[in-house]
Amino acid sequence: MPEDFKVPSNEITGRTQRLQKKMRVNNMDGLLIVQRVDLFYFSGTAQNGALYIPMDGDPVLFVLKYMPRAIVESPLQNIIEIKSMKEIPGLMVDHFGLLPEKLGLEFDVLPVKDFHFYQSFMGVRDYMDGSRLIMETRMIKSDWEIDQMDKSAELGQKTFEYMCSAIRSGITEMEFSGMCETFARKMGHGAGLRIRNFQTEGYAWHILSGKNGGIVGLLDAPASGMGTSPAFPCGAGSKRFCEHEPIMIDFGTVLNGYHIDETRMFAIGSMPDKAMKACDASIAIHDMVLENAKPGVTLGELFQLAVLKADALGYAEQFLGPTGYKVTFVGHGIGLELVEYPFIAKNRDMPLEPGMTFALEPKMVFEDEFAAGIESVFQVTETGHRLISKVPVKVFIC
Amino acid sequence: MPEDFKVPSNEITGRTQRLQKKMRVNNMDGLLIVQRVDLFYFSGTAQNGALYIPMDGDPVLFVLKYMPRAIVESPLQNIIEIKSMKEIPGLMVDHFGLLPEKLGLEFDVLPVKDFHFYQSFMGVRDYMDGSRLIMETRMIKSDWEIDQMDKSAELGQKTFEYMCSAIRSGITEMEFSGMCETFARKMGHGAGLRIRNFQTEGYAWHILSGKNGGIVGLLDAPASGMGTSPAFPCGAGSKRFCEHEPIMIDFGTVLNGYHIDETRMFAIGSMPDKAMKACDASIAIHDMVLENAKPGVTLGELFQLAVLKADALGYAEQFLGPTGYKVTFVGHGIGLELVEYPFIAKNRDMPLEPGMTFALEPKMVFEDEFAAGIESVFQVTETGHRLISKVPVKVFIC
Repeated sequence: MPEDFKVPSNEITGRTQRLQKKMRVNNMDGLLIVQRVDLFYFSGTAQNGALYIPMDGDPVLFVLKYMPRAIVESPLQNIIEIKSMKEIPGLMVDHFGLLPEKLGLEFDVLPVKDFHFYQSFMGVRDYMDGSRLIMETRMIKSDWEIDQMDKSAELGQKTFEYMCSAIRSGITEMEFSGMCETFARKMGHGAGLRIRNFQTEGYAWHILSGKNGGIVGLLDAPASGMGTSPAFPCGAGSKRFCEHEPIMIDFGTVLNGYHIDETRMFAIGSMPDKAMKACDASIAIHDMVLENAKPGVTLGELFQLAVLKADALGYAEQFLGPTGYKVTFVGHGIGLELVEYPFIAKNRDMPLEPGMTFALEPKMVFEDEFAAGIESVFQVTETGHRLISKVPVKVFIC
Repeated sequence: MPEDFKVPSNEITGRTQRLQKKMRVNNMDGLLIVQRVDLFYFSGTAQNGALYIPMDGDPVLFVLKYMPRAIVESPLQNIIEIKSMKEIPGLMVDHFGLLPEKLGLEFDVLPVKDFHFYQSFMGVRDYMDGSRLIMETRMIKSDWEIDQMDKSAELGQKTFEYMCSAIRSGITEMEFSGMCETFARKMGHGAGLRIRNFQTEGYAWHILSGKNGGIVGLLDAPASGMGTSPAFPCGAGSKRFCEHEPIMIDFGTVLNGYHIDETRMFAIGSMPDKAMKACDASIAIHDMVLENAKPGVTLGELFQLAVLKADALGYAEQFLGPTGYKVTFVGHGIGLELVEYPFIAKNRDMPLEPGMTFALEPKMVFEDEFAAGIESVFQVTETGHRLISKVPVKVFIC
């Protein structure tokens, strides 16, 4: 495995210190992290176990399985192999002299049954939700993380070039999704798209051709697509690509855990005028939001700008989904998970900060007709924004 | 979408009645189901919302998004569109005249934060874990469900045939995984493998070639493989296939939500004698467990038979993983999720019942050398067993 995949020691230290500062503000004595992505973020390894981060001092990583890989991957000093989670409170007392009074857990992902399990042996008095502090720490990316995302974006660019060379009429949406993933995997793509919410499934086959782009469904997205059956009623289906229809390809790329989420519109031969105009309008909204993205502007202001621009361009009805089923965000944070804090969404008063990274996705749905839109990943810089995505901002006529 | 993907009305009625019988035994007044797979199982639709099943009487499906698809897909009579989950208690009172005193929720998947959200408005006194009752209902498959799994298995068979025609030295594990998935998706494969446990990721690229089969890792599986980076340290990686090495391909197939989980050993040209003998031993264990699988035999007895057989064949050290890292199951239930109740595992005293379906996977790990094994899906019948898997029980020399 390439050495530059290893998370540097100063990354882990910096992340931990930023979290601990938030813990002190929130009177959280310690945080026990078990979810795989959070474990990887704060320890450098995704091996199975738990990471205890005290309000002050060094973290301790408890590894259930598999110790030999954990000690190679993690730069942490204190790594202890355990056979059962129930050993943790005793080992915490050995190490720190006492148990925390107020312990944070990842309430946004930890199932009730698992919480009851931890309560049964931890011997802690009060439990708190630690997920907000974790996500607010992860929200600000370091230069090293931006570099990781740049590498994912380079792979994304190559995959979109491949798409234009491989797309043909007669291929089904699902088959094409497989071809694109195969290309990306050959180049190092990590394949699994990670989503934190237990009700949302991460998948790389959000390919909606022609009228399938006009199908609303269960997703918290402007269009859901047809999917393959009532059991999986979203994303690509068995529809075959046709010439001259608008085709939306929303593809996630992952290298070393860092996601890029990108959408481009494609057409074979040519795109009908109505769809092309909607694509151009989406690009205009995309560019306008980017121009206004800088520290201090609030998420809600950016969202409102996008809505007003869509309205001015004559797409109020279609923007972000058909009336009655519109989504209330035009972008989402992105990093080690496909969807992270924060959202470029209605009424959010959090200001942009340098280091935030977003997937910006102004999309339109013409119900029962087609979808149009674009999606790029950008970072907030000290003075404005920088596109991480490297795919040309255009419609691909192939 | 094919009409035969629609879940028949009598299926839903039968499932609901079996669940309600268990609810009465457990004094559970009602069960509120929100997880997508459980929703699909008990309503026929996976659209976003919640299903309330009372101890007696007809269920009510509350649909957040997207009502037009829910009413087409679900044979239920009572389907109500809502804008917020908070409308549910009021609608329950309207419909049933009162709220349940003891309400079951899916504690094994519902995050603590979501539980707190429901507690804040449901107005219910006591909450119970409903997940065991749900999984014990889902554990027994109907003839219709077996038919669905047979169709998935037919697709699995074709995909394994394709694998033997497409495998070549020089292809990376990850690229080959993409090729296999592309083939399967072209034939209708639903692509997403569903796993209930929040810490376990469902993926279709568990392809471990040569020494990558000898790598232990975080998975609760005999071998984890190399993976693509410390962020995703399991499954296929960038290793290229070589001639004359044992290659383990563990591939999940899904049609209309029903999973098949199958493993076969492959080799290009020939397989070394040591590996071939281990493969033959795995097949012998597989066949012996099947011969003994019938109603009344306990899960623990079947597990013990497998362990004794491996021991007798001289593979005690490698069976189910290397010493110190052995898994404690040789098979798992399977259906709408890749891993379901129950497990063919150590000391489990539950007897087999007609309608149970299992993925049986006797596997061996020669640490730092290779993995060997096989995996088939079978159902328990009134008198014994029947293989649902249709892939030939053999080593594929291609």
